[in-house]
Amino acid sequence: MFSMTITPRFYETDAFGHINNIVIAGWFEAARAPIFRIFSPHFDIKQISLILARVEIDYVAQTHYGHDVLMMTTIERIGNSSFIVAQEAIQKGVVVAKGKAVQVYFDHHTQKSGPIPEVYRRELEAHVVASVS
Amino acid sequence: MFSMTITPRFYETDAFGHINNIVIAGWFEAARAPIFRIFSPHFDIKQISLILARVEIDYVAQTHYGHDVLMMTTIERIGNSSFIVAQEAIQKGVVVAKGKAVQVYFDHHTQKSGPIPEVYRRELEAHVVASVS
Amino acid sequence: MFSMTITPRFYETDAFGHINNIVIAGWFEAARAPIFRIFSPHFDIKQISLILARVEIDYVAQTHYGHDVLMMTTIERIGNSSFIVAQEAIQKGVVVAKGKAVQVYFDHHTQKSGPIPEVYRRELEAHVVASVS
Amino acid sequence: MFSMTITPRFYETDAFGHINNIVIAGWFEAARAPIFRIFSPHFDIKQISLILARVEIDYVAQTHYGHDVLMMTTIERIGNSSFIVAQEAIQKGVVVAKGKAVQVYFDHHTQKSGPIPEVYRRELEAHVVASVS
Repeated sequence: MFSMTITPRFYETDAFGHINNIVIAGWFEAARAPIFRIFSPHFDIKQISLILARVEIDYVAQTHYGHDVLMMTTIERIGNSSFIVAQEAIQKGVVVAKGKAVQVYFDHHTQKSGPIPEVYRRELEAHVVASVS
Repeated sequence: MFSMTITPRFYETDAFGHINNIVIAGWFEAARAPIFRIFSPHFDIKQISLILARVEIDYVAQTHYGHDVLMMTTIERIGNSSFIVAQEAIQKGVVVAKGKAVQVYFDHHTQKSGPIPEVYRRELEAHVVASVS
Repeated sequence: MFSMTITPRFYETDAFGHINNIVIAGWFEAARAPIFRIFSPHFDIKQISLILARVEIDYVAQTHYGHDVLMMTTIERIGNSSFIVAQEAIQKGVVVAKGKAVQVYFDHHTQKSGPIPEVYRRELEAHVVASVS
Repeated sequence: MFSMTITPRFYETDAFGHINNIVIAGWFEAARAPIFRIFSPHFDIKQISLILARVEIDYVAQTHYGHDVLMMTTIERIGNSSFIVAQEAIQKGVVVAKGKAVQVYFDHHTQKSGPIPEVYRRELEAHVVASVS
C-alpha cells in the first residue's frame, strides 16, 4: 500500500468553495507515481510503459481547502496485460473520494499492449490488498 | 444532444506528448455546462443545484495537440434524484474518450439531495438519447 | 494581431467565485498558439523552437464564469534572439487582464538560444502593433 | 521567510517533457498560502482580504519531473495598501524560476482596496528580507 499526503492549493478550489472534482482526478494520478516508478526506476517519464485505459471516481464527500488529504493507493487486481489500482482520498478521517484506475502495460518496442513482465508483476503483487468492499 | 468544440491547449499536453488524461476529465465537465445552465438559467454558479457523485472515463485513443476535439453530450437515464450524463470526445473522426457522469440534484434550502423538480426533469428528457452500445 | 475567444470552464473558477488568476496565465499561453505555429507550421509541438523566458500579468478586473473572453495578442518588440508578446483578455468589453511574454528562439541543433531566423522574423513583424499605452 | 516543498506531478509536465510554465505560476500561488493565512487565521478562504494585482515570473531553467522543488517566499516591500511578495523555485540546488506577486489589501465591508491594517502589517514585516539583487 502506498500513501501520499496532499496539501490542497487555492487554485484547486472552485466557485462552490470546495476542491474541484477534476483536481481530485489529478491527485489520484499523482498518488499513482510510486507505481509509475516500479515501471521506470530511474523515473524517465517518457519510458514509462503504462497507459491509462479507464478511471472511475466516486465523490463521497466535499473536499475542503485548508486541511491535508491522505491518498491511499493499492493494487486491486493484476490481469495479463493490465491491472487495477484502487485509491482513496481521506480528509480529516473521512473518505472524500474513491477511485479506480485501469493501467495497461505498453511495450514501446512493439508499440502495443502486452503481458506485464514478470519483474514488474512481482513488485505489483506486493501491493495487492484483499478488497473488503 | 449537446455539442461543444474544444481546441486543445499546449499546457494541456503532458510529457508523453499527448493531451493528459486529467484534462479530458475537465473537458467533459466543460461540455456539461449546458446541463448546468438548465438548472441555473441565469448561470449563477453558486446556485447550481447539482452535485457530481461519480465519473467514469474510458480512454480509447490518444488525444493530440493541434486538432480540435468535438464533445458530444447526452442524458442517458434520469432517476428520482439523479441522472446519468453520457459523453464522447471525438478527434479527427475518432472517439478518443467516453465518459459518464452521475449528477445528483441538491436542494440548497434543505441542504440535501432530493427529487429532481419537474421543470428541470422535462428539459433533461429532451436530451435523452436511446443508448445504442 | 491575433484574436481567440475563450469560454471559461467551471473548473477554472476558484473559491472567490471568479476565474482563478493562474488560469488566465494559461489562457494567455493558449492565445499564443498562432505564434507557436509560425515557428512550427506543421504544429509538431516537440519541434517548436521557442522558450518562455518571462511572463508578466496585470490583473485589472475580475473575470467571471458565464461570459466569453476575447484574447488579443500582438508582438510588441522583436530583438535579436527574443521577442515580446503583448496580450489582453477582454470580457464584456472590459480589459480584465494584460500580459507580456518574452519568448526566446531556441536552436534545437546547437541546444542554445540564437538569432531568430529571418523567415520567422518577417512573419512576426507582420504582427507588431505600435504600442499606445 | 516561508518555505514549502512541492513534488511535481505527472500531469504538470507538458509535451516538452518538463514542468509546464503555467504550473509554476500555480506553485508560486500555493507557496503564498502562509501569507493568506496571516490575513485569515482560520483559513476561511472566502474571507481572505487579498487581491492579486500583478505577477511576474522569470523562467531561469527547466523544471523536471522526478525531483522535489523548494519554494522560498519572502516579503520584498510593504506599501500602504499593497505589498510585494518575492519567490524562488529551487530544484536540485538550482533556481529554476523567480517570481513576484503584488497583493492588494481588499476590505470586504467597503468593497474597496484600503490600507493594510496594522495587525497584518506587523506580521508581514517579520518576513521582509533585504533584497540583494
